[in-house]
Amino acid sequence: MRRVMNILTIWFLLACTGLNGSPISGAERDPLPSWNDGASKKSIVDFVERVTREGGPDYVKPEDRIATFDHDGTLWAEQPMYFQIMFAMDRVRALAPKHPDWKTKQPFKAVLDRDIKALAALGETGFVKIMAVTHTGMTTDDFSKIVADWIATARHPRFDRLYTELVYQPMLELLAYVRANGFKTFIVSGGGVEFMRVFTERVYGIPPEQVVGSSGVVKFQLRPNDKPVLVKEGKIEFVDDGPGKPVGINRFIGRRPIFAFGNSDGDQQMLEWTAAGSGARFMGLVHHTDAEREWAYDRNSYVGRLDKAWDEAVKRGWTVTNMKTEWKKIFAFEPQ
Amino acid sequence: MRRVMNILTIWFLLACTGLNGSPISGAERDPLPSWNDGASKKSIVDFVERVTREGGPDYVKPEDRIATFDHDGTLWAEQPMYFQIMFAMDRVRALAPKHPDWKTKQPFKAVLDRDIKALAALGETGFVKIMAVTHTGMTTDDFSKIVADWIATARHPRFDRLYTELVYQPMLELLAYVRANGFKTFIVSGGGVEFMRVFTERVYGIPPEQVVGSSGVVKFQLRPNDKPVLVKEGKIEFVDDGPGKPVGINRFIGRRPIFAFGNSDGDQQMLEWTAAGSGARFMGLVHHTDAEREWAYDRNSYVGRLDKAWDEAVKRGWTVTNMKTEWKKIFAFEPQ
Repeated sequence: MRRVMNILTIWFLLACTGLNGSPISGAERDPLPSWNDGASKKSIVDFVERVTREGGPDYVKPEDRIATFDHDGTLWAEQPMYFQIMFAMDRVRALAPKHPDWKTKQPFKAVLDRDIKALAALGETGFVKIMAVTHTGMTTDDFSKIVADWIATARHPRFDRLYTELVYQPMLELLAYVRANGFKTFIVSGGGVEFMRVFTERVYGIPPEQVVGSSGVVKFQLRPNDKPVLVKEGKIEFVDDGPGKPVGINRFIGRRPIFAFGNSDGDQQMLEWTAAGSGARFMGLVHHTDAEREWAYDRNSYVGRLDKAWDEAVKRGWTVTNMKTEWKKIFAFEPQ
Repeated sequence: MRRVMNILTIWFLLACTGLNGSPISGAERDPLPSWNDGASKKSIVDFVERVTREGGPDYVKPEDRIATFDHDGTLWAEQPMYFQIMFAMDRVRALAPKHPDWKTKQPFKAVLDRDIKALAALGETGFVKIMAVTHTGMTTDDFSKIVADWIATARHPRFDRLYTELVYQPMLELLAYVRANGFKTFIVSGGGVEFMRVFTERVYGIPPEQVVGSSGVVKFQLRPNDKPVLVKEGKIEFVDDGPGKPVGINRFIGRRPIFAFGNSDGDQQMLEWTAAGSGARFMGLVHHTDAEREWAYDRNSYVGRLDKAWDEAVKRGWTVTNMKTEWKKIFAFEPQ
């Protein structure tokens, strides 16, 4: 018995010192080193401590610790335009040699000429045509390969970096922090679900099945050799934006988040839906305020407009993170 | 240094004996005690051992160990008809006092009179009307409460047991076995996703976000007091059956399963989709052959017809589980 006690004592000590592979107590290390001490960091840490304190009034069981994050402008940048649209433009240019008529045919001519004004003038009709030739008429497997090639090589025009280098270091830390506290993290984005899933696991540690996004109709087909394929068709199936976000959350996740982070009016209903549950709740918005290190935009932006959701956040006391003052570092590649 | 070595040695021994909470080596215990030794059990265990053997030719990384299970007829019974339809019938009866006109109005009259022939004669039109009054026009939260009340109290007509007692003990063991081997388990069912999610976590250990099913359109609404709700509308959105299953898998899971189990022609495309991936694959079908302990039906059944998928399984060497000969016990409540 004494020997067993000794063994247990040693094992307990090992557990406490972290020698056996258990995580070392978090109290000593700052889990959010890229966040300045400020209102946002305090509200995040307070919330996580409250919902994980067993026996406390705000305790939430691990299985109900659902955290949802918008993608564009919340986890990675979205300027000069959503990166999926940058992908579509690059893809038009890559396909152009096979379509000589595109040189004189809109909206492709505008893309090839890099004529943003002409493209803007073509509006939604032009956009839909570009999405059709770049996102449909192929199998899901082929599309994944195309995206994988692009994301591994394409470079952002301002920073000359891979797009996946334009993820926000503070948000990577936040994802890791809430996961270390038993949260299951989901992306809930207006972006295309099949576009994001190609890289979300590698970049954010979020597996494909925890990515909710917009989608087009996909059809099952047996090819002549009896090989089954899924073909991406030209019809929009679901737009996971604005009021579509609570619908997407309900459809894909099936329970209400207790923690949600966004950055634009497209996230307003997700935050409202999160706020309307019972018990402790966290609602956050990234406010893009740093034109030097990133971009500064809000009420009048054509991308990621933050207007109504901002007013509601102020009125209801949600967390609004001022990127310029609250983020010590925005991108991992910034000099120390 | 010597002291550290001793500590490590002790810890290693503890780990091996299981004293520190690690699972004891599975070799001694049968993980599938309700499965008779036979072709199905052998093919399951062989497959799981192959894909989990590190360094082996068929090794699959844990994150790619996706296992999908049909629900009706695969995880729980589906006779005399799908349990969700039993729920709808019970619900019509519960609502009848508020709708005196139903006594004389079809298809409700047939339900209240328990007139199966009249109901069958009304066909799909009748079915759609019954689904509309029992599954739409309410919030998702209200629907969940109604299902939760029903599943906790309603009893199966033949067995006089809760419907959740009609889950198959061998399949519960199989779910636990593959999960213990690093698989992530999903339900992929033609049933309504919001119906199943009420009880799948408690009954199968499968959380709502790992349940894929059919769904109706849901709309986000702000009620007068600014309370956001999701309202279930009367329009079908997605039928997760037959060729819809690979589509649903692609939409919700975003990667291809390596293991899939079904029981009917509605699972054929899910199995084809699973089989078409590269590397080791497991495709299984439950064959209902035991009229005494459960039910016996296949090619000519109006519920859970197993015909084309059976032929394909035989042709391609998929696992077909003969319930009568391969399952020692079907339901947990059976006498030992």
